[in-house]
Amino acid sequence: MIGQSGIAVKHVSRADAASVAELAKHGVATIHEAMGRVGLLHSYMRPIYPGAAACGTAVTIFAHPGDNWMLHVAAEMLKPGDVAVLGTSSENTDGMFGDLLATSFRARGAVGLVIDAGCRDTGELRDMGFPVWSRAVHAKGTVKATVGSVNTPIICAGVLVHPGDVVVADDDGVVIVPKQHAAKAAAAAAASATKEAGTRRRLAAGELGLDVYGMREALAKAGLKYVEDETALQQELQK
Amino acid sequence: MIGQSGIAVKHVSRADAASVAELAKHGVATIHEAMGRVGLLHSYMRPIYPGAAACGTAVTIFAHPGDNWMLHVAAEMLKPGDVAVLGTSSENTDGMFGDLLATSFRARGAVGLVIDAGCRDTGELRDMGFPVWSRAVHAKGTVKATVGSVNTPIICAGVLVHPGDVVVADDDGVVIVPKQHAAKAAAAAAASATKEAGTRRRLAAGELGLDVYGMREALAKAGLKYVEDETALQQELQK
Amino acid sequence: MIGQSGIAVKHVSRADAASVAELAKHGVATIHEAMGRVGLLHSYMRPIYPGAAACGTAVTIFAHPGDNWMLHVAAEMLKPGDVAVLGTSSENTDGMFGDLLATSFRARGAVGLVIDAGCRDTGELRDMGFPVWSRAVHAKGTVKATVGSVNTPIICAGVLVHPGDVVVADDDGVVIVPKQHAAKAAAAAAASATKEAGTRRRLAAGELGLDVYGMREALAKAGLKYVEDETALQQELQK
Amino acid sequence: MIGQSGIAVKHVSRADAASVAELAKHGVATIHEAMGRVGLLHSYMRPIYPGAAACGTAVTIFAHPGDNWMLHVAAEMLKPGDVAVLGTSSENTDGMFGDLLATSFRARGAVGLVIDAGCRDTGELRDMGFPVWSRAVHAKGTVKATVGSVNTPIICAGVLVHPGDVVVADDDGVVIVPKQHAAKAAAAAAASATKEAGTRRRLAAGELGLDVYGMREALAKAGLKYVEDETALQQELQK
Amino acid sequence: MIGQSGIAVKHVSRADAASVAELAKHGVATIHEAMGRVGLLHSYMRPIYPGAAACGTAVTIFAHPGDNWMLHVAAEMLKPGDVAVLGTSSENTDGMFGDLLATSFRARGAVGLVIDAGCRDTGELRDMGFPVWSRAVHAKGTVKATVGSVNTPIICAGVLVHPGDVVVADDDGVVIVPKQHAAKAAAAAAASATKEAGTRRRLAAGELGLDVYGMREALAKAGLKYVEDETALQQELQK
Amino acid sequence: MIGQSGIAVKHVSRADAASVAELAKHGVATIHEAMGRVGLLHSYMRPIYPGAAACGTAVTIFAHPGDNWMLHVAAEMLKPGDVAVLGTSSENTDGMFGDLLATSFRARGAVGLVIDAGCRDTGELRDMGFPVWSRAVHAKGTVKATVGSVNTPIICAGVLVHPGDVVVADDDGVVIVPKQHAAKAAAAAAASATKEAGTRRRLAAGELGLDVYGMREALAKAGLKYVEDETALQQELQK
Repeated sequence: MIGQSGIAVKHVSRADAASVAELAKHGVATIHEAMGRVGLLHSYMRPIYPGAAACGTAVTIFAHPGDNWMLHVAAEMLKPGDVAVLGTSSENTDGMFGDLLATSFRARGAVGLVIDAGCRDTGELRDMGFPVWSRAVHAKGTVKATVGSVNTPIICAGVLVHPGDVVVADDDGVVIVPKQHAAKAAAAAAASATKEAGTRRRLAAGELGLDVYGMREALAKAGLKYVEDETALQQELQK
Repeated sequence: MIGQSGIAVKHVSRADAASVAELAKHGVATIHEAMGRVGLLHSYMRPIYPGAAACGTAVTIFAHPGDNWMLHVAAEMLKPGDVAVLGTSSENTDGMFGDLLATSFRARGAVGLVIDAGCRDTGELRDMGFPVWSRAVHAKGTVKATVGSVNTPIICAGVLVHPGDVVVADDDGVVIVPKQHAAKAAAAAAASATKEAGTRRRLAAGELGLDVYGMREALAKAGLKYVEDETALQQELQK
Repeated sequence: MIGQSGIAVKHVSRADAASVAELAKHGVATIHEAMGRVGLLHSYMRPIYPGAAACGTAVTIFAHPGDNWMLHVAAEMLKPGDVAVLGTSSENTDGMFGDLLATSFRARGAVGLVIDAGCRDTGELRDMGFPVWSRAVHAKGTVKATVGSVNTPIICAGVLVHPGDVVVADDDGVVIVPKQHAAKAAAAAAASATKEAGTRRRLAAGELGLDVYGMREALAKAGLKYVEDETALQQELQK
Repeated sequence: MIGQSGIAVKHVSRADAASVAELAKHGVATIHEAMGRVGLLHSYMRPIYPGAAACGTAVTIFAHPGDNWMLHVAAEMLKPGDVAVLGTSSENTDGMFGDLLATSFRARGAVGLVIDAGCRDTGELRDMGFPVWSRAVHAKGTVKATVGSVNTPIICAGVLVHPGDVVVADDDGVVIVPKQHAAKAAAAAAASATKEAGTRRRLAAGELGLDVYGMREALAKAGLKYVEDETALQQELQK
Repeated sequence: MIGQSGIAVKHVSRADAASVAELAKHGVATIHEAMGRVGLLHSYMRPIYPGAAACGTAVTIFAHPGDNWMLHVAAEMLKPGDVAVLGTSSENTDGMFGDLLATSFRARGAVGLVIDAGCRDTGELRDMGFPVWSRAVHAKGTVKATVGSVNTPIICAGVLVHPGDVVVADDDGVVIVPKQHAAKAAAAAAASATKEAGTRRRLAAGELGLDVYGMREALAKAGLKYVEDETALQQELQK
Repeated sequence: MIGQSGIAVKHVSRADAASVAELAKHGVATIHEAMGRVGLLHSYMRPIYPGAAACGTAVTIFAHPGDNWMLHVAAEMLKPGDVAVLGTSSENTDGMFGDLLATSFRARGAVGLVIDAGCRDTGELRDMGFPVWSRAVHAKGTVKATVGSVNTPIICAGVLVHPGDVVVADDDGVVIVPKQHAAKAAAAAAASATKEAGTRRRLAAGELGLDVYGMREALAKAGLKYVEDETALQQELQK
């Protein structure tokens, strides 16, 4: 059951490397759209420094408020290219992760952390270039008293994450791509990016989205009425 | 009526260019003070990157939650020097605006966006240097299903905005100068800046605000009592 | 009584300079841990620009919402190396502090401000390199109508601050070290930093925290169970 | 200009009594829908006790944070059937209104208060049956130091309110009906209520909204696909 | 994939009636503890009136912000004893549900609604005795423009919900019991309630939890030190 | 130092019974005003049911997020007439207190709880008539793993509380009266209540606060200008 404590899974399947590599070329917004607008973490998850970016496979962590013990357990499970993803049993902003754990995670090959709690040592992490997305920055230290789980399905910031899923994160936030859909999502993102490039050129040249996307008829049908100026508007608003 | 959907006004009057040019020289805080402390959007409206700054005339947009259709309609109304300003019918953080729309807005001459909702593609927007002030950064995509309005009066983050009003935005937030008061506000801001420059020199030289502003008498009258040290304070606090 | 208005204390004792100098070498997270995880302000207190850092002795200010009069009174009490710390009588985000006050504070030797309210002119403050930690950035101007206090004990963002206490602030937030504990805290922080350096080297070399900290036995005792793979996990989750 | 301080308007026009009487028969949700989904205050405005209800004409108040002076000025402007509506120059939760002011307001004939700030003495107000909608309940006292305005246009919880507009408030929140649209809104609300009564009977009898509103075709066109059971769903979700 | 739009599942398996009946006898807190402290929705989900209580099987709904179309689709899937549970694709407080839908839901046999969005007509719902747990009360009306899904797995207020799971809700909030664990959870809740009754009697008789639960040794081991009085405390605090 | 863990103080001095009895006659708002507008907890502290009221002497508790162990330790320190007051080392909404602890607290003579965290079993507590003020209602269970302190000074919802201080709580929130000021505060509250009764009579008879408090001259001096009607207002607003 989601949220069950006391289990650490040693070996998990991960999304295929080719899909991860393709997804790494695209932004969170593009991937989220390409997947049908699903998989986004809540908007309160923010990078600890501008320009942070990561793409990798999830090692999942379930932890209790104010207790970062499971991050140490997770370190052993990390493989090169992984992104750790932590959900908690209740809302908490304590700084569960800092530069010592980041040093350990990097030594294991991890490329980032997504944590639905607080992060600290953010100056050092920025200097190290170790990207973290968190709900808060807080120096508050934690205990190591209660076990959670590692590599079990978790909810992180409103999204279900399985170990091995693809995690893509940038300035816009974080999106999760389920591992069984990674290839399809990567292909869709690539197609979308190609299409967007064409659209971007047309818009840059001054064409309107109304025409590029052919929206004028639908707008009229939906009831949009154009009036000439503010005088005409006054007449409308008084109706 | 404010919040009425279904109207797009093609031509609106705008604040005079000279006033806009003068206001562009001053910060949001200075202008807000010079106007008598009015016109500020709520503090949750933040620039998507540090150092963002814009000053221009408003094209207003009224939109529904999760629906960015009206931004496309607004693109056609934008003229060089405009700032788009979007209010919604209910609180929402979806990412209604991204780099494609920014490409289109820039091609039309717009110099920024103020949006009481979410923004996405923020890395690309920072690279483009297209400034946006928003209540959230979120990759969440939107639909194009329900019409709102363009160039009607709106409420954006607690402030009434008419099309053509001056919008000034910087690291401190956003202030709206009604177009009919633009000249007066520009003059007041200029006068205030001149006065502040003198005050700044005196303060930098070590003079106290208590003396520069002549506050000592008023403070005494309002009941402020000076005590020598912590021992004297203890006597006061025990009273 | 805390929160009493109408008193300004001219001379207060301050933490000893050697302790302040030692504490200045360490981060907020390290000091907070070394003190036994106490003294941290709430996580909503954020620096107005990345990389902001300050360490100094507190001049305390008690102010009312929307009224920055006491900041001018405090300027006179500031000595080189001080950090002003402001608490309010009720929650408020108005921009009580801007570049003019910063000019004055700097001329008096102050090295920063911690304010449980809003700050403005943040672009100018960043250019000046005058660090501020605040609960909000807002251009909203304030009045000078009601007296508070200076150099009395205050509550700032959930922490009791006495004048003369050490204030340490960086990207992670703000920690208060009571002046009578400054020497002890400085020594503990130095010891902790030395110890952390050794741990960091071991972790960087690939050792696991589980082994560095000797956690394996305690985890087993606390009930953590390792399973081999996802198939084994399914069996566990169905129990 | 909205938010200008220092003006009290003695006499204002009010919505016609017949429209107010008709609107008083309907709930906030019904009126808001009948007007085209406009005019609702933000959802943080809550009644101080369940079952609170008020309908009347607005006397508007613009006040500064932590300062309730203008409520006393407004008392003189209140006429029987009025609802006082207060907006502030910045976000504030201080308890600007309590049982003494309620006693005064009631003596003047007022039937309620809508305040975008805090309220206190809520137990006494509940006992008096004087309804208040506020953003907070807080005992925090206020000063009387800075003037605002009375009976000028204000923004209250995101909505523009003119003196004399109709204010309708109940358990669901608060809606403002501009006085010039009061008759039309009252008629629309009455028509809507009649129509809803018929719909309610059909739904109570077990008919589905899908059929009552004829939605099935539109749903199919919008892409909704029915599948028989969870097995069929798994096939869909794996696509 | 969770969050996929466009599917409505007609028939789903539901937790067995005996387990639902047993769970209905216990409070949310008891069940949550008995399950191992899992399954609780976020604390922002609140009943619209005190004393609201419901226990039933979930019909799940996935909807978009400001769009309540899927609630009408769900009505057809409701069977006697069901509780509708709605999650959204992004945070939203619009009033998606009111007394007309409640009339329809009740006619279908539903016993409540859990909605991670807004609710309206709350006075009428209280009078009807139709319990709702929501993140907001807001009269804001919605459109019917974009399809979501019915009876697919959803995330509601941070918890994964499958159709047919048991939903238990009371003054304390909402807990989800996965249908495959319903019998086990019901048994555990019953056992826990029995045990708690015994503990309650002992505590009511004046025994201390320290003795009832045998905590004294563990407290001492964890480092709790008893001191006689405030003088002794001062000595400790100065250490 | 505030926030130090590991100490339980057995015997503490308490405010004198006569002062507590006098304070119990007055509301939170009256006492807070009478003390000079100090001592109020943040407005997020709300009673779990309407009409809740308590007045007693504080037994203070310092606890860690998600850990309610210290509440059991505190039970032993409670004496008839006490109110338990709990602050935490970081923000947390877990349900640390429920009906079992309430049963124990009541058996010890406690008359209420003020907790800067969550509360559960709120239906049962309402039925028992055991009043609680909390920052959240949440069923989330807690662990007993880390020691905090009992009867040391704490910060609770922004206010410093010493053991033995008077705690007064009602529908408006919570105010703390330091024990050494209890007699003075009780006298001031009684005097204020007497004075307010007279004012109330005058206001109920229709006198205006402007006259009762003699505000007209000060308002004019502060710049308030009366205009006759909306036409005159337009002239003012255009200035």
